[in-house]
Amino acid sequence: MLGAVLHGPGDLRVQERKHPRILTPTDAVIRVTATCVCGSDLWPYRGIEKVPWPRPMGHEYAGVVEQVGDDVHTIQPGQFVVGSFFASDNTCDICRSGYQSSCINRVGIGSLGAQAEHLRVPLADGTLVPTPGTPPDALIPALLAASDVLGTGWFAATAAQAGPGRTVVVVGDGAVGLLAVLAARQLGATRVIVMSRHESRQKLALDHGATDIVSERGDDGVARVKELTGGLGAHSVIEAVGTQEAMMQAVRCGRPGGHIGYVGIAHDVELPGHELFFAQVSLQGGLAPVRRFLPELIDLIWTGRIDPGRVFDLDLPLTRAAEGYAAMHERRAVKVLLRP
Amino acid sequence: MLGAVLHGPGDLRVQERKHPRILTPTDAVIRVTATCVCGSDLWPYRGIEKVPWPRPMGHEYAGVVEQVGDDVHTIQPGQFVVGSFFASDNTCDICRSGYQSSCINRVGIGSLGAQAEHLRVPLADGTLVPTPGTPPDALIPALLAASDVLGTGWFAATAAQAGPGRTVVVVGDGAVGLLAVLAARQLGATRVIVMSRHESRQKLALDHGATDIVSERGDDGVARVKELTGGLGAHSVIEAVGTQEAMMQAVRCGRPGGHIGYVGIAHDVELPGHELFFAQVSLQGGLAPVRRFLPELIDLIWTGRIDPGRVFDLDLPLTRAAEGYAAMHERRAVKVLLRP
Repeated sequence: MLGAVLHGPGDLRVQERKHPRILTPTDAVIRVTATCVCGSDLWPYRGIEKVPWPRPMGHEYAGVVEQVGDDVHTIQPGQFVVGSFFASDNTCDICRSGYQSSCINRVGIGSLGAQAEHLRVPLADGTLVPTPGTPPDALIPALLAASDVLGTGWFAATAAQAGPGRTVVVVGDGAVGLLAVLAARQLGATRVIVMSRHESRQKLALDHGATDIVSERGDDGVARVKELTGGLGAHSVIEAVGTQEAMMQAVRCGRPGGHIGYVGIAHDVELPGHELFFAQVSLQGGLAPVRRFLPELIDLIWTGRIDPGRVFDLDLPLTRAAEGYAAMHERRAVKVLLRP
Repeated sequence: MLGAVLHGPGDLRVQERKHPRILTPTDAVIRVTATCVCGSDLWPYRGIEKVPWPRPMGHEYAGVVEQVGDDVHTIQPGQFVVGSFFASDNTCDICRSGYQSSCINRVGIGSLGAQAEHLRVPLADGTLVPTPGTPPDALIPALLAASDVLGTGWFAATAAQAGPGRTVVVVGDGAVGLLAVLAARQLGATRVIVMSRHESRQKLALDHGATDIVSERGDDGVARVKELTGGLGAHSVIEAVGTQEAMMQAVRCGRPGGHIGYVGIAHDVELPGHELFFAQVSLQGGLAPVRRFLPELIDLIWTGRIDPGRVFDLDLPLTRAAEGYAAMHERRAVKVLLRP
C-alpha cells in the first residue's frame, strides 16, 4: 500500500509501505477514507523536532473497518469510524476520568502512520467511534476534523471553561484555534475574540462565530484585549500555538480567576511561577483527550449543527502529500486533507 | 502604639508607631486582639525578598472595631472581626467571581503592618467579617488562623478539587500545608497523603485527618506517592512551599487529569511547558482569595466543627515578636501567635 514517509527535514515521500495486519486480538485494520496534515507534523518536517528517519507520518483518520481481531466486540467490518491520535482502552481509571490521551495502555497512532491507504488501530473497541451509517462525501472533511483539530479545539474550550456569559480569547489562528472559536460558541460563550493577522483566517473565524478580531500581537495584543474587556482581561483564554510568546500572551489576556486552556504543543516554553502566582489564572491543557468528545462531535456533525470541515482549504490525493506539507509549511494552506 | 518593624535581614524590632486613623470614609480602625507571623514574612526577614527598610510587618489579624468611616455601613464599632491580607471591596466583577485577593481596588494589609496594637483596614465593609459575638479566648487562635493560613489552605484544597472519592497529596508541612490537610478532609477527600519529615508536624497532620505520611522527598517522594496510588498519582495535589523542587514534586505527584492547587509564593520557579503539556495536570492557585471563604470558616470554627488553632505552637506577647520570628526562621515553631 502507499503511505507518507518523512525521510528528513522537508523530505516527505509517498511510497510503498507494508499493508498493516492484525497483530493483537484487540486490533482493527481500517481502509483510510481521509487523512490530513497536522500543524504538529510540521515540527519534524521543519527539523525542529528530532525524530528517527525514515518515519511514517500522520495521526488523523476516518475510514472503513476492514478487519477486526478476535477480542474486538463493538466494532465490525464495514462500519465507518473515526478515531483519535492515541489509541486508548477507554476502560482504565484515567480513561474513565475523561483523559483517554493518557490511557495507561495508550498507543500513539503517529508511530503507525495514518497518512496511508490502510491503518492498524490498536484497542479498537476503546478507540474507534462508528458513525450512524456511511457518510455522504460532503461530511468526510467534518468527520475527519473530529479526529484531532476539532476535538482538540473542543478540549481547549472546555479546559478554558468557555460558556454562557463568558468572554473567550483565542490565541492562534491555525485549524485548532479556528475550531476552538466554533467550540467556544457552541459551548455558549457570549463573546469570542480571535487574535489573527491573516485575512482569510479572520474570515473563517468570523464564520465560526468570532465576535472580535485583534490583529496586534504580544504586549500590544494584550493591551487591546484588556481594552475590550473593561480593563480586566478575558474569563477564558485558549492557547493553540505552543510557543513562549503565545503562552505568555494567553496568560496575560486572562483576568484573575480566569482559565487558560492550552493545547499548542509546548516547545521551549518556561512558565514564570511568580507571574502565574500573581496572575491567578488557572491552566489546564496538554494532549487533548479527543476520544472523550468524539460521540458528541460526530452527532453534532451528523445532524448538521456544526461544520468544522471548512478548515480544510486544500484537498489532495495522498500521492501529492508532499505538496500539502509544503503548502502548510509556507502557510499557504490552513489544513490539508489527503485522500488515499 | 507598638508595632513590629523589620529594619533589615534578621533585625525585627517592636517599636512605637503612629496610631492609625481613618483616612478615607470606607476605612475602619481595629484594636488588634491577635496577630501572627507568616511563612511569607520570613522571605524578607531572611533577606531573600528585597523590601525597603524599615518596613512595618504583618498581614493577619482579628480584633475589635474601634472606629469606622462615614461610608462604612455593615461594620460597627464593638464588633469582633476577622479580615484577610488584602482589603477588597467585595463588589467588583473580580470579587464577585470569588477572587477578592485581586479586587480591582485591593489594598495589601502587609503594607499597613498588622503586627501592631491597632490597624487601619481599608474597604471595611468588603473586607471584615464579624463573628456572631465576642469570642471566648479559646477561639481566638482558630479565628486568627482563618485570616490567612486556614483560608489559604482551604483555597488550595478547593483549587486542587479535593473532595469525596479523591486522593490528595499535600506538599509542605508548614501551617498552610497542615491546614490544607484539615480542609481536604472537611471537603470530603477520602485519602490525604502528607509529605513531611518532621515528627511533630506529622502528628498534627494525622490529627487533622491525614491518612498517610510520606517522608521521602523529590523523585523518591514522587515514587512513593505513585506506589500508594496504584501507579497513577493523586487526583489532587496541594503545593504549599513555593520552591522549584516543591512545585515539580507537586506536578509529578498528580495523575493525568489531576488538579494542582498551589499557594506557596513562587520564588524563582520556572515551570517546564513541555512536561506540563504531557503531564496533563491542571494548575490553579496563587494569592488565596481568603475573603471568599471567611463566612463559612468562621461558622465552622464558631460551631466547633473545626479547630485550626492548633497550628500555633508558640504564643507570645507582641513585644517579643523578634523571638517569634527567630523561632519560625529556625523551624522551632510552626506558627507564632502574637498578642498586642
